[in-house]
Amino acid sequence: MRRILVTVSYDGTAYSGWQKQKNENIKTVQGEFERACKRLFKTEIGTIGASRTDAGVHALGQRAVFDIDSTIPTDRIPMALNSFLPEDIVITAAEDAEADFNPRFAAKSKTYEYKIYNSPFRNPIYRNFTEYVREKLDVTKMKQAAEAFVGEHDFKGFCSSGNSSKTTVRTIYGISVEKDGSVITIRVTGNGFLYNMVRIIAGTLIYVGNGKIDPSDMADIIASGDRIRAGKTAGPLGLTLMEVVY
Amino acid sequence: MRRILVTVSYDGTAYSGWQKQKNENIKTVQGEFERACKRLFKTEIGTIGASRTDAGVHALGQRAVFDIDSTIPTDRIPMALNSFLPEDIVITAAEDAEADFNPRFAAKSKTYEYKIYNSPFRNPIYRNFTEYVREKLDVTKMKQAAEAFVGEHDFKGFCSSGNSSKTTVRTIYGISVEKDGSVITIRVTGNGFLYNMVRIIAGTLIYVGNGKIDPSDMADIIASGDRIRAGKTAGPLGLTLMEVVY
Repeated sequence: MRRILVTVSYDGTAYSGWQKQKNENIKTVQGEFERACKRLFKTEIGTIGASRTDAGVHALGQRAVFDIDSTIPTDRIPMALNSFLPEDIVITAAEDAEADFNPRFAAKSKTYEYKIYNSPFRNPIYRNFTEYVREKLDVTKMKQAAEAFVGEHDFKGFCSSGNSSKTTVRTIYGISVEKDGSVITIRVTGNGFLYNMVRIIAGTLIYVGNGKIDPSDMADIIASGDRIRAGKTAGPLGLTLMEVVY
Repeated sequence: MRRILVTVSYDGTAYSGWQKQKNENIKTVQGEFERACKRLFKTEIGTIGASRTDAGVHALGQRAVFDIDSTIPTDRIPMALNSFLPEDIVITAAEDAEADFNPRFAAKSKTYEYKIYNSPFRNPIYRNFTEYVREKLDVTKMKQAAEAFVGEHDFKGFCSSGNSSKTTVRTIYGISVEKDGSVITIRVTGNGFLYNMVRIIAGTLIYVGNGKIDPSDMADIIASGDRIRAGKTAGPLGLTLMEVVY
């Protein structure tokens, strides 16, 4: 048996998230991926993903492993799998991994981008890949507030109920807020993220941008551990898993 | 009666182009737009668009006019129409126009962008808004070749059969080719464009980028008026109508 580690891109708009569901009528990325594996390798294949992205969340750098007996060369696997995948899921790389390599627990860091379309009118071209915010956001204040997230913090105020992690302490290595035309991109890298953490950070920075939260209160809001003091959970379509580093 | 000039954005992926078809089962942007007008103004409304964008082509700056008796303030029209439009069509502006203003014939210039996703693997997030090209394109050569299009030329080699214009002479005011990550954007402004002209220019520049056409032959290919010497017509999804200037 060989363990293969692949990089997966997807437009998550049409999917109920990465994680396969018991009900096979629920369309998931992992479900489609395992169906393609079965067609290529002619046997049932179980897969483990690095991140359980939610319904509507996208990925350009999701990682996943599976074990095969096949002698197909590793570098041929992406093209071969892609021929069995729908056009909204693309395998972009494959490499050999250790037999016990777990892409979730081995992750040293993950990077997400959260995109906001900020304009008086919606943009139909970006509608599935951005969160729409009509009121003008103050990006300078958002940048200022973002600084408070960097470092090791107990992020228990920044996770949704349903979070199953043992500890709510996480380290954010870096966060940036950049505006390009009407699109604001929040890019955040950390050693791990709690359930909905990036979407709550984005929702909180939107509140900073529209003046509901003052940037100088950010550190205090994080330290309070109070979910109520943070912003709303921003929608899933603005979120993309960019990279997992091992 | 008042004539209203609106600006229209759309994701053209799901539409058989702008132009309304006799067969009402064929989904068109103009058809959806007139249906929204009818619901808002409670009467049949005819519309005239600036550009008959093809099936799959997008717009961020299409323009269209219609006549109404309604006393609704002009600046309220976009929001009111948007509430009756599907999410892939958005009216972003409205202004009053002269009673005989024709958005097609009055256009002084139009700007289109053609986007190419150039990478060893497809990107599912850009799939409906770019033309996918696997082989690496030489952007420097594409920039060089693009210069030859600027100015007044007889573009009869750069239009598809079915072109109905009286003359095939058009003036290109400017063309740029820029690469950002894996996305190459060709932006072209001219006094008007023949049927499929921008898509043939894009297809020809792709041939320059992959070495099938030498940049130094570009002026000669244009002057020849020979459709066969130009490149293939690039796909519709990469094309977006950005702006119409009056």
